[in-house]
Amino acid sequence: MNSKEIRESIHSGKWEGMTVGRAGRYVQTGLVILPKSSAYDFLVFCQRNPKPCPLLEITDPGCSILSKLAPGADIRYEIGSYAIWRKGELVEEVPDIEQYWKEDSVGFMLGSSLTFSQALKEAGCESSTGITLYNTNIACAPSGPFSGHMVVTMQTLPPEKVARAVQVTGRFQATHGAPIHIGDPAAIGITDLSKTTGNTSAPSIPQGHVPLFWACSVTPQIIAQETKIDFMITHSSGHGFVTDLMDYDIAEP
Amino acid sequence: MNSKEIRESIHSGKWEGMTVGRAGRYVQTGLVILPKSSAYDFLVFCQRNPKPCPLLEITDPGCSILSKLAPGADIRYEIGSYAIWRKGELVEEVPDIEQYWKEDSVGFMLGSSLTFSQALKEAGCESSTGITLYNTNIACAPSGPFSGHMVVTMQTLPPEKVARAVQVTGRFQATHGAPIHIGDPAAIGITDLSKTTGNTSAPSIPQGHVPLFWACSVTPQIIAQETKIDFMITHSSGHGFVTDLMDYDIAEP
Repeated sequence: MNSKEIRESIHSGKWEGMTVGRAGRYVQTGLVILPKSSAYDFLVFCQRNPKPCPLLEITDPGCSILSKLAPGADIRYEIGSYAIWRKGELVEEVPDIEQYWKEDSVGFMLGSSLTFSQALKEAGCESSTGITLYNTNIACAPSGPFSGHMVVTMQTLPPEKVARAVQVTGRFQATHGAPIHIGDPAAIGITDLSKTTGNTSAPSIPQGHVPLFWACSVTPQIIAQETKIDFMITHSSGHGFVTDLMDYDIAEP
Repeated sequence: MNSKEIRESIHSGKWEGMTVGRAGRYVQTGLVILPKSSAYDFLVFCQRNPKPCPLLEITDPGCSILSKLAPGADIRYEIGSYAIWRKGELVEEVPDIEQYWKEDSVGFMLGSSLTFSQALKEAGCESSTGITLYNTNIACAPSGPFSGHMVVTMQTLPPEKVARAVQVTGRFQATHGAPIHIGDPAAIGITDLSKTTGNTSAPSIPQGHVPLFWACSVTPQIIAQETKIDFMITHSSGHGFVTDLMDYDIAEP
């Protein structure tokens, strides 16, 4: 299926499950929606934290239609699952957000590392343990009420594949780029690999394999929790927005 | 002189003239200062137009001290010349902006192509005609009141140097990256090479040399003129802010 067909399938309710690993080389993004009153501070937060929050498009207030990543797509319907956050609590996960979209809603499309799983696979760098999410002790640069710690995705590889994985993902700065950490999980505050976040399963790392960690666009969800943001809509983790761009369209040389 | 010494020399009034070509491989930036009420729209403008407006740091409202590009530097004093714009008119050029800085002032530091002149020189790609600024017919993506056309810098090279110049500057996305156009100036609306902007002199291009055009952070000044923005402070063209970062610190691999 091409990107339009995937989005139509999601919009019509036919698509089942996540988009991770199921959209070829299309760029996938996460989503954050905030009222205009919080949008400035969050926009500054994205500028100051481009590794977890690479901002690929921002909508005008009240306009749910994209113009750049997927011209004409409506961000209220074309993600498989949305998370509704109130005062830092996840109150609901819903298949569309028609009822939550307001005249002052602003949509932020954040590049997602779901994007480069296919590029890694084609380079022979498929994670031996899938993709696992963790909270870390890496502080984000704050902006207004937005402050907190970075969420990362972990993939594991045999040692001889590590350098290649850095090179492959380093080209995709718009979707988190090169790893922010390689090796000892404890060095970034992950002391127990069984304590994952974002509904991912605890991995069992093969002897001698190396963990690699990338900044993750789930970070704003943790920020919302840590700082009890009044109201925020995000994608549910694993459910990306599938854009019309291919990863090589946004890659550095 | 290192970056701190250059800024001190500027602050104390000892520095004479522009910074173009005089700060080695330090990253230089342009500056835009706006009241908080216009800052959101301009921030979105930067997000939508990263080639002319690569935003490297944004200050909190009322805070003139940088934390990332040159920790502790005060943007009110450490650029050689500032331009004051009212309703699109350049009303004054001043050596500091103490009197214009307000509690709601927000500073935007935009990567400048002054940065890569040294890298080009070291790669044997020194422009045969210096650096010239032009208005173009390339429309920027609008945001609120900010809309208008891109300003470009032109450098000219013998044909055998063109590819190398693309490679060298392509690594520096934070300071405009690769050229946005190579060849016929008329294709981007420059029909008369003698009509320069930004106080640059009309060039005389050697027979057979090729013009290369890069997006330029003087663009917001033209936007201010075209849309008669109420109040804006910018750097004067050729007068960059010299950061503590080296160009290779921000370069892609």
